[in-house]
Amino acid sequence: MTLTLTPVPGIPMIQPGDDLAVITLQSLARAGICLQDGDVLVVTSKIVSKAEGRLVSLAQVTPSSRAVELAAQSEKDPRLVELILSESARVLRVRPGAIIVEHRLGFVCANAGIDHSNVQLPDCVLLLPEKPDASAQSLRRRLEETGGARLGVLVIDSHGRAWRMGVVGVAIGLSGLPGLVDLRGRPDLFDARLQVTLVGVADELAAAASLVMGQSDEGTPLIHVRGFPYPLREASLGELLRPQDQDLFR
Amino acid sequence: MTLTLTPVPGIPMIQPGDDLAVITLQSLARAGICLQDGDVLVVTSKIVSKAEGRLVSLAQVTPSSRAVELAAQSEKDPRLVELILSESARVLRVRPGAIIVEHRLGFVCANAGIDHSNVQLPDCVLLLPEKPDASAQSLRRRLEETGGARLGVLVIDSHGRAWRMGVVGVAIGLSGLPGLVDLRGRPDLFDARLQVTLVGVADELAAAASLVMGQSDEGTPLIHVRGFPYPLREASLGELLRPQDQDLFR
Repeated sequence: MTLTLTPVPGIPMIQPGDDLAVITLQSLARAGICLQDGDVLVVTSKIVSKAEGRLVSLAQVTPSSRAVELAAQSEKDPRLVELILSESARVLRVRPGAIIVEHRLGFVCANAGIDHSNVQLPDCVLLLPEKPDASAQSLRRRLEETGGARLGVLVIDSHGRAWRMGVVGVAIGLSGLPGLVDLRGRPDLFDARLQVTLVGVADELAAAASLVMGQSDEGTPLIHVRGFPYPLREASLGELLRPQDQDLFR
Repeated sequence: MTLTLTPVPGIPMIQPGDDLAVITLQSLARAGICLQDGDVLVVTSKIVSKAEGRLVSLAQVTPSSRAVELAAQSEKDPRLVELILSESARVLRVRPGAIIVEHRLGFVCANAGIDHSNVQLPDCVLLLPEKPDASAQSLRRRLEETGGARLGVLVIDSHGRAWRMGVVGVAIGLSGLPGLVDLRGRPDLFDARLQVTLVGVADELAAAASLVMGQSDEGTPLIHVRGFPYPLREASLGELLRPQDQDLFR
């Protein structure tokens, strides 16, 4: 089956308190896209954060002494570093330009995913959504109620990676679609056992959607996906997070 | 623009010496797919390796003492470990079930990408292609000559990751499409500068294609892509490999 990823045009500039479900439904309708069972909507974390009021003014942040120290090492604004620390469970690595952390949400990323591009107000930064799984679930429920179709919703961000250059889209919240698919025991063409068992399908879809979005959010913070090749089911981000004791690179 | 990824049906079981360009053109024609400028073809490394005769019989391998030692640590066949070592520049981590290496091709992966699923002969394993960039280039040139369209070709494999569960598709060879796209300096919606500069677009496309392929290669080792959103250009895998001195997790 063909997989199609279509940017949904006409998403306005999102403001705190905006109703993403209503905006999504209106934009889909204007684009002539009729939701069907099995469709997935992929939304960038930026507009979820904006709708949820996760903008923070640096002027209101007082850095701790630890933030001041890490700011010197990372060559960052100490107030930004204070926010990074407040959003993180632990700091893994520091270098000029980047503080690699385990985010309070459980994944590893640079600078706790705090963004200061595409933020309208000077000296403001955007934190990731408080609970991206819950954001995805809430959006999904509203879309399913109105649209009458069984859907998946994926909230994505862009993360750097060990070993490879360039950021790629990754899942940070999901509802209604699998994070991992376990192919263990499915016989291959010669009835041997597959060696590779777990596929990070939500991350693969996040990367695909990110490719279509580009990085600057200009009009494409929402992607409509048709032809996702695995059955939809209940899931949460946790299944994509490697437990620390299984992680050779933390 | 919509991105579409379509499995190309009818690829036969690949044998050493098979001409992938001819097989690809025949399969595209049967599927009614007419190549256009800007299209990308994504092929799994497995069929490239098979066509290039990269099957190795373990019976012909004599393990070194280092291979025997690592085999005990990793609970693997010493002959397989010998092949892993011969395909690797260095070993990064060892645990039961996995030897994480820097492959001779420059990327980090488990078990040097050596596969023993979907291999027809007992006690045989499949090495990655000798030079995947060259494989991609050769396939691309042949397809462009016959099809008359400007194309990209991407050879992909599935790699595990630090920090996250599940394998995802990644590029291991490319020709004619960018590995990285540099968005540095492109003004965002508020004319600030983008913080994130480099996007691993070839890896994002690899992940997207992997999602459509599944893991067992059953009839979908080749994906036709239309709507890749960046201009095609000459490139090689090197641009996706993080230099060791910039890597905080090696």
